[in-house]
Amino acid sequence: MKKVGVAILGLGVVGGGTYKILEEHREFYKKTHEIDIAVESVLELRKERALALGISENKIASNIAEVCSNPEVDIVVEVMGGVEPARTFVLAALKAGKSVVTSNKELYCKYSHELEKTAKKNKCGLFFEASCVGGVPVIRALLDNLQGNKILSMTGIINGTTNYILTKMTNDEVSYEEVLKEAQKLGYAEADPTADVEGYDAAYKLSILSSLAFHTKIPFSKIYREGITDISIEDINYGKKLGMVMKLLAVGKNGENGIEVRVHPAFVKNAHPLAGVNDSFNAVFITGDSVDDVMLYGRGAGALPTGSAIVGDIIYCAKHDNFNYSTFSNSEEADPATKFVTNFNSAYYIRLSARDKTGVLSKISSIFSKNNISVAQVVQENDKRANGSVPLLLITHDTFEKSVNKAVEEIGSKANLAKVESVIRVIS
Amino acid sequence: MKKVGVAILGLGVVGGGTYKILEEHREFYKKTHEIDIAVESVLELRKERALALGISENKIASNIAEVCSNPEVDIVVEVMGGVEPARTFVLAALKAGKSVVTSNKELYCKYSHELEKTAKKNKCGLFFEASCVGGVPVIRALLDNLQGNKILSMTGIINGTTNYILTKMTNDEVSYEEVLKEAQKLGYAEADPTADVEGYDAAYKLSILSSLAFHTKIPFSKIYREGITDISIEDINYGKKLGMVMKLLAVGKNGENGIEVRVHPAFVKNAHPLAGVNDSFNAVFITGDSVDDVMLYGRGAGALPTGSAIVGDIIYCAKHDNFNYSTFSNSEEADPATKFVTNFNSAYYIRLSARDKTGVLSKISSIFSKNNISVAQVVQENDKRANGSVPLLLITHDTFEKSVNKAVEEIGSKANLAKVESVIRVIS
Repeated sequence: MKKVGVAILGLGVVGGGTYKILEEHREFYKKTHEIDIAVESVLELRKERALALGISENKIASNIAEVCSNPEVDIVVEVMGGVEPARTFVLAALKAGKSVVTSNKELYCKYSHELEKTAKKNKCGLFFEASCVGGVPVIRALLDNLQGNKILSMTGIINGTTNYILTKMTNDEVSYEEVLKEAQKLGYAEADPTADVEGYDAAYKLSILSSLAFHTKIPFSKIYREGITDISIEDINYGKKLGMVMKLLAVGKNGENGIEVRVHPAFVKNAHPLAGVNDSFNAVFITGDSVDDVMLYGRGAGALPTGSAIVGDIIYCAKHDNFNYSTFSNSEEADPATKFVTNFNSAYYIRLSARDKTGVLSKISSIFSKNNISVAQVVQENDKRANGSVPLLLITHDTFEKSVNKAVEEIGSKANLAKVESVIRVIS
Repeated sequence: MKKVGVAILGLGVVGGGTYKILEEHREFYKKTHEIDIAVESVLELRKERALALGISENKIASNIAEVCSNPEVDIVVEVMGGVEPARTFVLAALKAGKSVVTSNKELYCKYSHELEKTAKKNKCGLFFEASCVGGVPVIRALLDNLQGNKILSMTGIINGTTNYILTKMTNDEVSYEEVLKEAQKLGYAEADPTADVEGYDAAYKLSILSSLAFHTKIPFSKIYREGITDISIEDINYGKKLGMVMKLLAVGKNGENGIEVRVHPAFVKNAHPLAGVNDSFNAVFITGDSVDDVMLYGRGAGALPTGSAIVGDIIYCAKHDNFNYSTFSNSEEADPATKFVTNFNSAYYIRLSARDKTGVLSKISSIFSKNNISVAQVVQENDKRANGSVPLLLITHDTFEKSVNKAVEEIGSKANLAKVESVIRVIS
C-alpha cells in the first residue's frame, strides 16, 4: 500500500478540521483508495493546539526547515492564511520537492505565478481547491469537467460572512450594524470584518476562479470591488416587495468586448437559482458555451467543509504521478492583450425620493430615456409620502453603467426633482 | 503539441453535439490545453448523418474493426445507447488499447464490471461522466473532490423527461397523460417513454452514482423503482397548498443499518434546494460527513451539455498518462457483505377520502398512533365535501414504510372509515 506523509502548517480552524478528517478516516482511505495517509509533521506556534488534538510531541516541528527536510513528508498542507510567512513556507516546501495543498486565497491570488513556477520547476503538485468556496468543488469542475467549454460567465455568492449578514438583514429586518455585531459575537465575522464586508475575500476568490475560467490571468487589481457596509434595510425591504433578494455577488464575464470582473452587492430576482442560497451557504453559477448553466452549491467555509476540499486534494495528489498547471501564462500582471470592460452592463434598481408634484415622474422618465435607459418597472410608494416627497422605485432593463451614472447625476442635480437614495445592480 | 485522435460511435443527438464541440473548439483546445484533438473516425449506420455534419467520406468507418485498427484513434467515444452492439464495440476498442469515453448509462450500469476489467487489463482509461446527469459534474465530484468523505446520502432529480412532465403538471395543472403527449410532440419524451417515466433511466444512474459514493457495487437489481405514471393532478395541487412540489427522486443512503437505494416520486418541501430544480434541469444533493451538504445543478441532457461532459472526459484522458479505476470490487453482483435496507424511513403524505362523520378523525388518528406513526400535520378539505366524504390530508413525521403500509391497510379495510387515495413519500 502506498504511504503518504502529510505536514500541516497551521492548526487553526481549517488545519484542525483537516487533521481530524485525516485521522478519523485513515482506515477508510486505506480501504477505499489503498493509500495510508499519515500526518507526519505539524507546524504551529501555539503548541497547545497540537497537543489538544492529540498530536504527539515528536511530530510538532519547530520550524519550516524541519518540515522540509523530513523525508516522511510528501505533501505540505498550508492553512495558515495571510501572505507571510505562508508564502516563504510554501516556496520552501516546493523547493524541497514536496507537493503543496493550500486553502490560502490571498496567497494564491497574489502569488500563484511565483508558487506555480516553483512547483513546475520541482515537478511538484500545487493544489488549491480549498482556497475558493470551501467544500464546493468549483476549481476541479473548471479544470477537469467544464474545460471543454468557453466559459461565458460566472456569478458567485462566495463569501459566507456577508451572505450570513445579508440573509439575516433580509429575514429579521434589522440593520447592517446590528447583524454585524451579532455575527461577531457568534464568530461568523472577524473582529476586523474588513476583508469580508468590503469584498476583498470575494475578490481574491474571483481572481483565482476567473483566471481559470477565462484562461488568462485576472489579477486582483483588475477587479472592481464594492462592499456591503452601505446596504440599507430600506432597500432590502423594497427589494423583497419587488421579488428580489440582496446578495454580495462576484461576477465574471467573458464577452465580445472583453472581460468584466466585479464584486458588489446586487439584487437577485427570486426566480434565479442563486436567490435561494442563504445563510453561510455559497454557490457559483457558471454558464459555458456547451454546458449551458451549471450551479455548484454548498458550504463555503468551516473546518470540515474546507477540510473536505483539502483532503480531496491530498488524495488526488497521492493518486497522480504527474501534475497539470495553469492553462495560461500565469504571470503577476494581466496579459497586455486582455481587454477589460469597465462600463458594466446590467439592470439597475434606482430608489429616488421624488418631489410629490405633478410632472415629476414624466421629467424623470425623460432623463432616463434621453440616456437610452429603458425602464422595466416603476413603483411609487404612495403610503410612504412624507415632507412633500414620495419614494419612487425604478428597475431598468439591461443598460450601461455609464448611462445610469449620467442619468442619476442629472436627476440629482436638478432641484425640485428628486434625491437619489440608492443605485443597486440587478441580476435576473 | 500532443495530438489526440478521437472516434465517435453513433452520431445521434449526443454524438452530433460532441462532434460539433470538438470541431468548433479545436483551435481553442490547442491554445488552452496544448492538445490537438481531431475526430479521425466515426461509426454510424446512417451515413447521411455523418455527411450532414460535414465529415469527409474517408473518416466514416464501415465497421468497428476498422475503428479499432486505426492507429490515428486514441480515444473511442461511445454514444450509441443501449446494451448491444455498444458493449461489443466498447470491449473491442479497449482490447485494441483505446481509451473509452461513454455516455451510455444502461451499458455502464449493467456491464461496468466487464468493461472496467478489460480497461484495466489493457491499461486504458474508461470515462463515463456523461452517463449521469449530462453536463452536471457529479461523477468527478464524487471521484476527485468528495472522495475524502463518507457519503451519507444523495438525493437527485436525475431524469429530465420526468422533471419536465412534473413541472408542467404543477405549473399548468394538467394531467400526466396530456403533458406526456405534448412532451412527445416536442421531442422531450420518447415515443415509448417507459425508460424515463417508469424510472429505469434514473435507476441506471443511481446504480452508477451510489456505487461510486458508497464504495461498493450497487447493482440495478437492488434499486427499488416506482414511476410517475400514477401521479394525479389532485395530489400535485394539494401538495402545492401544503408547500411542497412533486419530483421523481433517486435516493441513496448509507446508514447504520445498511444501504438504501430507491427511485420514486416524492414531495419535496419548498425550502429544500431541490424544490427549485424545474423543467429539464437536474440536480444532485449530496451529504458527506465532512463537506456537509453540496448540490450540483445543471442540464441533465441535451446534445451540447452531454457533449460538454464527454469532451471534458476526452481532455482529462488526454492529459493523464495513467488511469484510476473503481475504489471497490466492481463485480456484477453486490458484495454479499453489503446490507440493503428495504424498510425505508421517510415522512409520508397520505390522502384519504374520509367518511364525513364525527369520530372518524379520532379513529384514524388512533390507527396511526398504534403503528407508532407520529402525524405532523392534518388538513381536512371541508370545501371539497362530496357524497358523504371529505378529503383528509396527513403528513407524518419520519417513520418506517412498513408501519405506514400497515396503518394504511387497516384504514382501508374498515368500512365506513376512509378510502386511501394516495400515499407519497415526503423529503424535507
